[in-house]
Amino acid sequence: MTLDATPDFRSLALAKSQAKLAAIPDEWKIPDEKMPPDEQKDVTSFPSSSGILTDQELEITQTPAETIVQRLIKGECKSLDVTRAFCKRAAIAHQLTNCLSEIMFQDALKAAKEFDDYFSANGKPFGPLAGLPISIKDNFNVKGYDSTLGFVAWINDPQDEDSTLVTLLKSQGAVIYCKTTTPTAMMIAETVSNANGRTLNPRDRTMTCGGSSGGEGALIAMGGSPLGMGTDIGGSIRIPAAFNAIWGLKPSLGRFPTHKARSGLAGQEAVHSINGPMSQDFSSLELFARTVVGTQPWNVDPKCVPIPWSPVSPSSLPDTGLVFAVIKNNGSVAPTPPVLRALEEACRALREKGHEIIEWEPTGEFQEADNLLEAFFGAEGGEGIYKLMEAGGEHEVWVPGLALGKSGKGFTVGQTWANQARRTGWGGRMLEKMNGIKGQSGRVVDAIISPVAPDVVTPHDSYHYVGYTGAWNLLDAPGVTFPVPDFKVETDKDGKDESYSPMNERDEKVWKEYDVEKLAGLPVCLQLVGRRLQEEKALALAKRVHEILEARGKVAAP
Amino acid sequence: MTLDATPDFRSLALAKSQAKLAAIPDEWKIPDEKMPPDEQKDVTSFPSSSGILTDQELEITQTPAETIVQRLIKGECKSLDVTRAFCKRAAIAHQLTNCLSEIMFQDALKAAKEFDDYFSANGKPFGPLAGLPISIKDNFNVKGYDSTLGFVAWINDPQDEDSTLVTLLKSQGAVIYCKTTTPTAMMIAETVSNANGRTLNPRDRTMTCGGSSGGEGALIAMGGSPLGMGTDIGGSIRIPAAFNAIWGLKPSLGRFPTHKARSGLAGQEAVHSINGPMSQDFSSLELFARTVVGTQPWNVDPKCVPIPWSPVSPSSLPDTGLVFAVIKNNGSVAPTPPVLRALEEACRALREKGHEIIEWEPTGEFQEADNLLEAFFGAEGGEGIYKLMEAGGEHEVWVPGLALGKSGKGFTVGQTWANQARRTGWGGRMLEKMNGIKGQSGRVVDAIISPVAPDVVTPHDSYHYVGYTGAWNLLDAPGVTFPVPDFKVETDKDGKDESYSPMNERDEKVWKEYDVEKLAGLPVCLQLVGRRLQEEKALALAKRVHEILEARGKVAAP
Repeated sequence: MTLDATPDFRSLALAKSQAKLAAIPDEWKIPDEKMPPDEQKDVTSFPSSSGILTDQELEITQTPAETIVQRLIKGECKSLDVTRAFCKRAAIAHQLTNCLSEIMFQDALKAAKEFDDYFSANGKPFGPLAGLPISIKDNFNVKGYDSTLGFVAWINDPQDEDSTLVTLLKSQGAVIYCKTTTPTAMMIAETVSNANGRTLNPRDRTMTCGGSSGGEGALIAMGGSPLGMGTDIGGSIRIPAAFNAIWGLKPSLGRFPTHKARSGLAGQEAVHSINGPMSQDFSSLELFARTVVGTQPWNVDPKCVPIPWSPVSPSSLPDTGLVFAVIKNNGSVAPTPPVLRALEEACRALREKGHEIIEWEPTGEFQEADNLLEAFFGAEGGEGIYKLMEAGGEHEVWVPGLALGKSGKGFTVGQTWANQARRTGWGGRMLEKMNGIKGQSGRVVDAIISPVAPDVVTPHDSYHYVGYTGAWNLLDAPGVTFPVPDFKVETDKDGKDESYSPMNERDEKVWKEYDVEKLAGLPVCLQLVGRRLQEEKALALAKRVHEILEARGKVAAP
Repeated sequence: MTLDATPDFRSLALAKSQAKLAAIPDEWKIPDEKMPPDEQKDVTSFPSSSGILTDQELEITQTPAETIVQRLIKGECKSLDVTRAFCKRAAIAHQLTNCLSEIMFQDALKAAKEFDDYFSANGKPFGPLAGLPISIKDNFNVKGYDSTLGFVAWINDPQDEDSTLVTLLKSQGAVIYCKTTTPTAMMIAETVSNANGRTLNPRDRTMTCGGSSGGEGALIAMGGSPLGMGTDIGGSIRIPAAFNAIWGLKPSLGRFPTHKARSGLAGQEAVHSINGPMSQDFSSLELFARTVVGTQPWNVDPKCVPIPWSPVSPSSLPDTGLVFAVIKNNGSVAPTPPVLRALEEACRALREKGHEIIEWEPTGEFQEADNLLEAFFGAEGGEGIYKLMEAGGEHEVWVPGLALGKSGKGFTVGQTWANQARRTGWGGRMLEKMNGIKGQSGRVVDAIISPVAPDVVTPHDSYHYVGYTGAWNLLDAPGVTFPVPDFKVETDKDGKDESYSPMNERDEKVWKEYDVEKLAGLPVCLQLVGRRLQEEKALALAKRVHEILEARGKVAAP
């Protein structure tokens, strides 16, 4: 069992884990007799029946962030009450899924009280977020707290200052109340590390919550956060969003500040890690975007671009005639049956509403993206990760799924330059391909609809392929993960095609390990991909597609 | 003499040089008896007296691009006549300064004729440039022509397709009629290579024309181009613009397309090379910017950002109260006396008009920038450049000033990542510093006024320091080079301070080699630096400063 470990490393990790539990007030702890048994897979309904949250607290934790903010602004509720409700629910989520890396409840309640006092004294809220609690991924630094990123070596290494995004969020009235788990170095698409152990999927605890923003995904699916911050370098927002059936936005580099955050591959820039929001609802993504971009982060983060947030009103999009490209198979790994069925259902619903669907014909571009991503992430041979694991005494207890850090085989700077030049050429060809996808009227493709992952979700330690998300990191295009409404995996519709001939080894693994019985009843997410630095349009289109999917079959007969 | 060479390399370079001369029609060749003697330094007035251009051609080659375009649009002149005029003048410029790398006069005259035919047939011009001739630096590919970048190995290697910028310019009605010289790999701030020899400064042929867009600088100063395209990774537009006393804009990455252009350090992205316009007049820079950005280059170049061109009207800037930071000495290399005097004169004129000047206090940030630039440019140990020189047989005949390619000492990918992380930290601190520079009203600094170079210009093979420009490449901030009106180096005002104690070896070199006698009478340029991706404001402010400088001392007494 890989997670067994030397005493030193284990004692540090254990102490960290105990310190987190100790930061949870006793009255928010799940009594042993109420604790769901390990074999209970779905724990998402536990908070409602736990007796730990009041009815009012349950109501507030089921309310979208945008609505909460409106109530706070009007003085209809207090930040302290809202924050306490989410702290409680987050505490429950953590006890059931191990999703928190840092617990800041006491500081948060104090900050909430200060926002309330400000409101009382001034008759108006402190900033547009007005005291909204927001959860953040572990790599955003908060002064006085660790940012371990799953490294034992970074346990008990409290940070000196807040990340720029944290500073800006606080300045807009956010209460930061917890940080969420990541896998080691944030470089696994599941969430497991020697420092924090494993985070479970709350809809099925035998399944992965995805990664690397998996703690965020699990917390939000549990209702433990109205709005959370993830990061994404190859799918790390979109995959856990999909596996936890929530919304997630991976923006282009430069819309949201990344400055002063901790990284698993610090200074790697051939593919940029970016920050983005995750939530149970669409409106929270826009709330986050307009608030953060409204602070003009380009004045403080050298990587931010001075593009104001200019929402594309969904009503300004034409009612018919939008052009979507659909990727049914990227030529590298085929999506499993329910993902393909969800895609086809989306296409049918869009066509019925008068929009055009054009199939994307892959010609090797996704394999090239796979190769480039691997070359960039592994360019220094995993040296940095290995050294950090060594420093924490955890290097001999390898983390399942962590491919980086082992081989020591990397590239020279000259080879990396050559790969970067190849990537730019690839990007130009991708744009050419997109420009060539046109509707009958000549309208150029509005967006791409694609799987997020070949799988709906997988058991622990068996997620194999990030190419459906990673390619868009390479192009720096925005991607929105959204749940397909009224769609579940169905045993009779989504059986494996036993006659399938896999395209390659990885495709074979995904196909072989697909087991509809394990997935029956789970929701499915898709991805909408837009044009670089045009997040507003990508969000508006994702909302439109979601609305069309929501409305399907619901139109009364004439 | 370093430029002597093995027969093989020399014969290739000689043949290239002869082929270029052969592409100049005999009637545009300067007869031996009219050729200015080698000892004649300033040749800028030669075209007027050459007898090669008609009066009409002389007039058109002294007209700003914007005006020419207006005339073309109205049908008041023909592209063929305009193009022929600039071809002739470029031919003269080349014969006197060796500024052209490719001569495309015949193709250009044909293209111009086609634009004229289009106008005749359609009663309107083909595109907003309407048949304007534009010159381009050698690294922009044109199908069928070399892009040698000074490498002998790339002589007789005609390119397969146009660079994206060339495609877009042609689509807007530009006539591309010549390409201009660069130093080897575009990595010297002068313009000398084994493939193309040396380009001379037309105002003083014993002086360097700067680099790496030195051919462009010399051509434009000779009146041989109304508008030219340079590139800049550490000063390569701004330095030759300054040394030739013309305007130049180094934009941020992503405003103008760089796709499919040739690079001396292909795939190096820690500091991005960008493209920008150079011209004798301000209005041509804006003409270029609005035309190119108007094509929405982000749809075809993966590095372009979707920010429309939104000119900041100079009249929308306040009449008083603008806040300028001035860098009088960056702490690394001090500017020579005439540059400092020009800066002080600019400050005085701005203050007199009611604007605020705040001195930038360097605290090591420019030394750090110097070190980072060196680490990034040399990250692969110059391997790529050395191999290319080897392939052309020119590696044993080193090019003066070429620091890269010799040592073989580079960095690992891990070290480069660490340097990139350092650069991002540095960038954040630079922004903090800028945000802290405020006027008395609290207005945050509008722009920085700085030397372009410590020197007004230097003799060949003795330009030592690019830190005044390179730091802004590192920050990706726009920089505008502009000539200081009515300002010349004066022997009695700009004498060397013999008592100066240099700060370091490089500073000492610059100080020691400064010789006011050699520079007397030459014009001086300054640099205005703006905020990243806010080129419109930087241009508007540069224009404002230039106007204030133009008006100084010209106000009638009451």
